Amino acid sequence: MKQILPLLVGALLTISISAQNKTPDEKDIATIIKKHGIDNSQVMEIASYMTDVLGQRLTGSTGLKNANNWAESKLTEIGMENSHLEAWEGFGRGWDMTHFEMHAKAPTYWPIIAYPKAWSSSTKGTGDVVYLNATTIDELDKYKGKLSGKFVLLEDIREVEEAFEPTAKRHDSESLVKLANATQPIPSQRRRRGGNADAAALRAATWELLETEKPLATLDRSRKGDLGTVFVSGARTAEGNARENDKYVVPQMTLAIEHYNRIFRMLEQDIPVTLTIDSQSNYTNPEGNENNVIAEIPGTDLKDEVVMFGAHYDSWHAGTGATDNGSGSAVMMEAARILIETIKETGIQPRRTLRIALWTGEEQGLFGSRKYVGKHFATAAESGFAVASLKEDQKKVSGYFNMDNGTGKIRGVYLQGNQAVSPIFREWLKPFHEMDASTISLSNTGGTDHLAFDMAGIPGFQFIQEPISYSTKTHHSNMDNFDHLVGDDLKQAATIIAYFIWQTSQRDEQLPRKATDLKYE
Amino acid sequence: MKQILPLLVGALLTISISAQNKTPDEKDIATIIKKHGIDNSQVMEIASYMTDVLGQRLTGSTGLKNANNWAESKLTEIGMENSHLEAWEGFGRGWDMTHFEMHAKAPTYWPIIAYPKAWSSSTKGTGDVVYLNATTIDELDKYKGKLSGKFVLLEDIREVEEAFEPTAKRHDSESLVKLANATQPIPSQRRRRGGNADAAALRAATWELLETEKPLATLDRSRKGDLGTVFVSGARTAEGNARENDKYVVPQMTLAIEHYNRIFRMLEQDIPVTLTIDSQSNYTNPEGNENNVIAEIPGTDLKDEVVMFGAHYDSWHAGTGATDNGSGSAVMMEAARILIETIKETGIQPRRTLRIALWTGEEQGLFGSRKYVGKHFATAAESGFAVASLKEDQKKVSGYFNMDNGTGKIRGVYLQGNQAVSPIFREWLKPFHEMDASTISLSNTGGTDHLAFDMAGIPGFQFIQEPISYSTKTHHSNMDNFDHLVGDDLKQAATIIAYFIWQTSQRDEQLPRKATDLKYE
Repeated sequence: MKQILPLLVGALLTISISAQNKTPDEKDIATIIKKHGIDNSQVMEIASYMTDVLGQRLTGSTGLKNANNWAESKLTEIGMENSHLEAWEGFGRGWDMTHFEMHAKAPTYWPIIAYPKAWSSSTKGTGDVVYLNATTIDELDKYKGKLSGKFVLLEDIREVEEAFEPTAKRHDSESLVKLANATQPIPSQRRRRGGNADAAALRAATWELLETEKPLATLDRSRKGDLGTVFVSGARTAEGNARENDKYVVPQMTLAIEHYNRIFRMLEQDIPVTLTIDSQSNYTNPEGNENNVIAEIPGTDLKDEVVMFGAHYDSWHAGTGATDNGSGSAVMMEAARILIETIKETGIQPRRTLRIALWTGEEQGLFGSRKYVGKHFATAAESGFAVASLKEDQKKVSGYFNMDNGTGKIRGVYLQGNQAVSPIFREWLKPFHEMDASTISLSNTGGTDHLAFDMAGIPGFQFIQEPISYSTKTHHSNMDNFDHLVGDDLKQAATIIAYFIWQTSQRDEQLPRKATDLKYE
Repeated sequence: MKQILPLLVGALLTISISAQNKTPDEKDIATIIKKHGIDNSQVMEIASYMTDVLGQRLTGSTGLKNANNWAESKLTEIGMENSHLEAWEGFGRGWDMTHFEMHAKAPTYWPIIAYPKAWSSSTKGTGDVVYLNATTIDELDKYKGKLSGKFVLLEDIREVEEAFEPTAKRHDSESLVKLANATQPIPSQRRRRGGNADAAALRAATWELLETEKPLATLDRSRKGDLGTVFVSGARTAEGNARENDKYVVPQMTLAIEHYNRIFRMLEQDIPVTLTIDSQSNYTNPEGNENNVIAEIPGTDLKDEVVMFGAHYDSWHAGTGATDNGSGSAVMMEAARILIETIKETGIQPRRTLRIALWTGEEQGLFGSRKYVGKHFATAAESGFAVASLKEDQKKVSGYFNMDNGTGKIRGVYLQGNQAVSPIFREWLKPFHEMDASTISLSNTGGTDHLAFDMAGIPGFQFIQEPISYSTKTHHSNMDNFDHLVGDDLKQAATIIAYFIWQTSQRDEQLPRKATDLKYE
């Protein structure tokens, strides 16, 4: 045995050298992709323009419209073809925040750190603060006729804990082993919104009261966040959808916890508190349609088949959507750029067509990706997220790669329960073991656009990423800004994803699929 | 040996019991003080009113004036005598922030988290942003005539690091042993303000230019802080003092780092940035005098001697001065309350007079404490912090205890180089070993009011405190708010300090003093 090994290595070496003399082999492709992805990276330039210059990209907003136009041009500029906006319907109106300020006036002045929830109606005025503290529908009665012109606190104090643990983290061997040992995931039940029927009835009655009373604003302090970091997303209504045209939406403000608690503590001490607000916004886009951004690198012998890759491009409005999901969007645009540079350098063309998609409406329910899949690959069920039947073009999509878990580099990939793809991805990760990416997890990840593909029987994947500060500080917060992107991590992610796209394009077979009960139309 | 020990313990036990039958011994006093300080604490109620209700307490501001009046009443209410405001002169005008808002208008709207530096002149308007990037005085020429109506960036980008280490900390045995092993401190040289003569000349020329040009505002991003935490103190001038009446002070704004960097990165990409600001403030108190708050618990047989304890009460303006130094002020007020309750319960009167001082003007140079010491105990040198000679009453102050290092509980005490006091304090800490306070450090701490006493030859001390989030998050920041006070820590601190005051009052001798070259007048 000992004597055989050197001979074998010698033989492999010969093959490798002879391959280099013809066309780049797989190892060379990885090297070339790494050169363009790591040494010549442009991911941070893309991300800076996307977040710093274009800013927030709330679906339906002017910000997203401008960002879509920029992406369409930028994808052409980097060398993609057929770059275009592809419309989808039924989102509802958009919302542009045009001015926001809030201050305490009494007992003493201070400027308040707060943000309106998206789709809040405009509001302006000065008034006192009351705490709406009702545990039953009957208790709501005492607030009737008393909330107009007031600021209404909706929540009790939340205690703030000092950060004796790091708020930013990377995976360690323990957490990776746990992922690697994950068993076949159980199809998740759609989570029902909080609590029991009584609680739901109280909530509905509370919001009906608020919509009747029309306070200056309701105030809350979000479930997490401190020290100036505020987590804020969309406004709610008693019933229906805040995106319906002409619908009045109670102005809903989320305050920095320190400012919320300060107001609450003063009320507890019977100190009257007076605030002033000027929150202005425009409802936009009354026809309610939106666009995804789509572009391609054409394939050759298998050009009717596609490899798709994408990320949601829309964001919430208080930050600039840097880690949610400027990072994923910039990485996917950069992956396309890396592949184009690799094609130029090697002269090797992709076999399948490579198609990028920057989705919109993800934050409100994966709308962009579901509408896209619903148009091209499957017919949606009448209600909910489910798919009823499959279209013929579903067969042409070999796979879809998504990124939407922040700025952290890739430590591996979730198989989304697709065991058959495991040996393939294991092989593809080999050139990136030196970059810490080697874990294969049978587990799935939820809550983002690969699900639209997965539910239509198309292999759709997310990667295992370093958590960094995603869940603790940036995801849906006012501090989701460029400064919390980690450049080296994004370079690594773009490089690995480019390689996965390339390999999916070049293999003879499509990626193996999970069994499905869905039928073709 | 083995047989002797039980006998000895037995003997000690007998003495202890017999002492209990007469008057409370030292151990009992500690127990009673702990009961009032820990079980019946009011420190968080005091701190909440001081920070939440009274708010910022910038020296010279209406906020501090109101806070002084409240403290004067509150000290009477808890049972102190002779509570009064004691004036000191020469501070200069005060400054009340009455309105602040700042927004980006182009290329896209967002509300900016920022604060004016204290004593900034009011400013209102909309304008473009320029980066003042001069490394020599000659290079300033190109900005002449071009800064009026503009926002002027003064600093390069500061890279933001994610928090892979905790931002809040407690001492561990390693850091305490280091403190315990500290050697005799070397008298510190007064630190000279940054750099060489060229740098100083450039700074002066820059501020002269800015005072001539009168931009809408200068913008900086402070040395530390991120994620919505902004560190901001006082405005600067080319020469002289921003507190001089009628002096124009360039409006100087400190921005959240993410917002500052975002603007800077856009300028780097040649994207014009337009901001709008409305920063309004009133200059107050043109006569320029201030007050410390003083109150006493009268002594008995040694009533002409005093034990002093205090903390600076003034704060910066962007937060509510919770850890700097609402914590110290509330703890000292609470220590007084604990002692009064202890006196009521035991019937034992203090021998020396116990005098609390809530100092003002600390943030601008320990003015309140230095002026107080200069009036009663020593004559100040003509310039600088030094003392020229001592007054007779200096002999009557046994010691001064100060607290000004945030919310952390006490782990021990700094001897401030006073070795002779070591065995005394070591004994006094014994009842608090169970509360983690046991370290004696020969080292000194600087930068706060005990120095005024120390320099006049009066034993002045600060305690070793847990760091918590003081230097990383709250000290001089907009997030120095009540929520970052740790209640259990403050209770412990008030309890231990009450006991130290009591022991200083009751011992036959005054506390030993360090040798001094100063002469009595």
